[in-house]
Amino acid sequence: MTCTGMGDPVVYLDNAATSWPKPAAVRNAVQRALTVYGANPGRSGHSMGLAASEAVYRCREELADFFHLPDPSGVVFVQNCTMALNIVLKGLLREGGRAVVSDLEHNAVMRPLHALSPDSPVYDTAAVVPGNTQATVAAFERCIVPETRVIVCTHASNVFGIRLPIREIGAMAHRYGLPFVVDAAQSAGLLPIDMQKDNVDFLCIPGHKGLYGPAGIGALLCNSSLSLPTFVEGGTGSQSLELLQPEELPDRLESGTLNTVGICGLQAGVGFVRERGMEELAGRETRLMASLYDRLANLRGVRLYTPRPDLRLGAPVLSFNLAGRRSEEVAQALDGRKIACRAGLHCAPAAHRRFGTLESGTVRLAPSAFTTAAEIDRVCRAIWCEVHAGRRCGQQG
Amino acid sequence: MTCTGMGDPVVYLDNAATSWPKPAAVRNAVQRALTVYGANPGRSGHSMGLAASEAVYRCREELADFFHLPDPSGVVFVQNCTMALNIVLKGLLREGGRAVVSDLEHNAVMRPLHALSPDSPVYDTAAVVPGNTQATVAAFERCIVPETRVIVCTHASNVFGIRLPIREIGAMAHRYGLPFVVDAAQSAGLLPIDMQKDNVDFLCIPGHKGLYGPAGIGALLCNSSLSLPTFVEGGTGSQSLELLQPEELPDRLESGTLNTVGICGLQAGVGFVRERGMEELAGRETRLMASLYDRLANLRGVRLYTPRPDLRLGAPVLSFNLAGRRSEEVAQALDGRKIACRAGLHCAPAAHRRFGTLESGTVRLAPSAFTTAAEIDRVCRAIWCEVHAGRRCGQQG
Repeated sequence: MTCTGMGDPVVYLDNAATSWPKPAAVRNAVQRALTVYGANPGRSGHSMGLAASEAVYRCREELADFFHLPDPSGVVFVQNCTMALNIVLKGLLREGGRAVVSDLEHNAVMRPLHALSPDSPVYDTAAVVPGNTQATVAAFERCIVPETRVIVCTHASNVFGIRLPIREIGAMAHRYGLPFVVDAAQSAGLLPIDMQKDNVDFLCIPGHKGLYGPAGIGALLCNSSLSLPTFVEGGTGSQSLELLQPEELPDRLESGTLNTVGICGLQAGVGFVRERGMEELAGRETRLMASLYDRLANLRGVRLYTPRPDLRLGAPVLSFNLAGRRSEEVAQALDGRKIACRAGLHCAPAAHRRFGTLESGTVRLAPSAFTTAAEIDRVCRAIWCEVHAGRRCGQQG
Repeated sequence: MTCTGMGDPVVYLDNAATSWPKPAAVRNAVQRALTVYGANPGRSGHSMGLAASEAVYRCREELADFFHLPDPSGVVFVQNCTMALNIVLKGLLREGGRAVVSDLEHNAVMRPLHALSPDSPVYDTAAVVPGNTQATVAAFERCIVPETRVIVCTHASNVFGIRLPIREIGAMAHRYGLPFVVDAAQSAGLLPIDMQKDNVDFLCIPGHKGLYGPAGIGALLCNSSLSLPTFVEGGTGSQSLELLQPEELPDRLESGTLNTVGICGLQAGVGFVRERGMEELAGRETRLMASLYDRLANLRGVRLYTPRPDLRLGAPVLSFNLAGRRSEEVAQALDGRKIACRAGLHCAPAAHRRFGTLESGTVRLAPSAFTTAAEIDRVCRAIWCEVHAGRRCGQQG
């Protein structure tokens, strides 16, 4: 079997960290923002300022529509999904109380909760039962105590792709009168999210992964009568006379100059997903990963951790290890074969604890709309070469 | 006198809100970041990830060098200057204590301080004496009480341009063992700042104004042995096993995905300022504004608030009003004449209270490297036409 030659382009399968390449429409929107929407939105009343404000508002509308949030004013732009999670978790737990989380959470959920009370955890952890909605919801429900103030979970594990039944968890949360927060870092743009039907009160999204926007933009979508306390105060271009931050969203949670460039890029990214069709994209990526899974499953020394990729059960994110080798070492070797992927803990030690991969970490492969079947073939060959590492690369197998 | 015709391009004098246009080098760097540095920096070990990490580090080095910060690790990237101010002010006052501020501060300083204790202010206000270093420093010194934990001030007023003697205020702060924080929103890239010689412990800068980067990027530069508490916790790509945020800068204060696009753009912006020469740029802009000032001073009905622009005394930001007219109305009329500027309170009610313009606001004009003498002529003519508003635009004067 022939491995990668030096002339081959990189196969980028690190899309769970950030998607690359970006669609041409996104790159163009970024340029356009720098030139046409270059004034500061929401600050000045001149035509260029208004044009920038309108461009920002169009992205609010786009996101609200995409995630079925009735009021676009509830779309708060932030630097990243982590910031959105910090705002909402620290806001809801400001007066004390506890959170219920899953055992697959990213550090973007766990570290803010830890920071709230480093000496005595303020969260209770529900063990997800992959593929079993009822058991998973029951696990969350069992964690609820009188002090519980919020239920928060990832929509899909960033390490293993495992999908959580957010609609049913949200319905259960609402039966207890609890707000439901979803970390859609891995699912936004890939799995359908309807904030209304899925009972999501606060949705935290990155702009730069499945929505194909540039790095540096994310959003917190608020669909709740609960008013979050401010997190960052400063100039909002509104009610400037007042030392108190405005009450209204989005100004209440948006201080200082917005990332217009990122916002315009994100809108184009959402447009790209709409145009290609989210279901179509996710289906295609899942088929690619399922084909990869099948071939890896037949390779001795490859350890897989999840069932065969299936969109009903998970996002197309595949974690694996090679027997007797550290994940970082394998990823580095794959990099030498021009396969870009991430190894280690992926900022989610909880998920690794659950799967017994806390020491080894995992090698993670995540495709995007631009991943091709030929690229997946190259990945297969590269892993094959690694498994048979004794054999020189380029040798016929 | 002929006013603006419909075919003329916009004269953009709203550079104190955000600079426009951006240099070609910045636009190119942004595109390059989207394509060449598209992986997630600090996350993955593959070549593209490392290239992105290196690009980000180069900008840390560039900023550290530009502002004379010895250790580039002290450069923390944030969304905007407001975020930097929130991190440092809330960090230093976390355990209580008071701040000394000037009477020219922006809401990015005042609102976070207000949020810390809405019912009982935790700040004491020093009245700046424009042009008088000794009296200004003495005013700050008089505000120090045993509970004081930090001195924070703007380097130059965003409304009136008035420059504060940061070197001397910083030296005085250090005599009391107090950390000194500077809000360089209006001065970064325009007035020299040497964190060492100017005794600045924490410098807060926007990337998108005088440094010509894109909107959505700013930085907090830390030159202190004081370790700030974390503000946003989450994935850092480092020490992922730990629930505790890493101790080391910049990771301690940088959670979630960075704005690589903005960072690369900012580096190019700093490069542009270096190439053109900061002193040369500031001198040229000051001369333009001084020429405008002289002409406005001779126009009946124009109210000016500061002495003639002089770089030693202030940044080239000019505020004015027309007798009997609201600032917003004047700015709107100027927009009709294709002059883009901002009116109102500019998110800095404190400065307006000081100058008696809290009700009227002011019309603010701020040039950039791209402002031309011909544009300033056009602005003069447009204001002339507004003063003589009874005369139709286009009429010979």
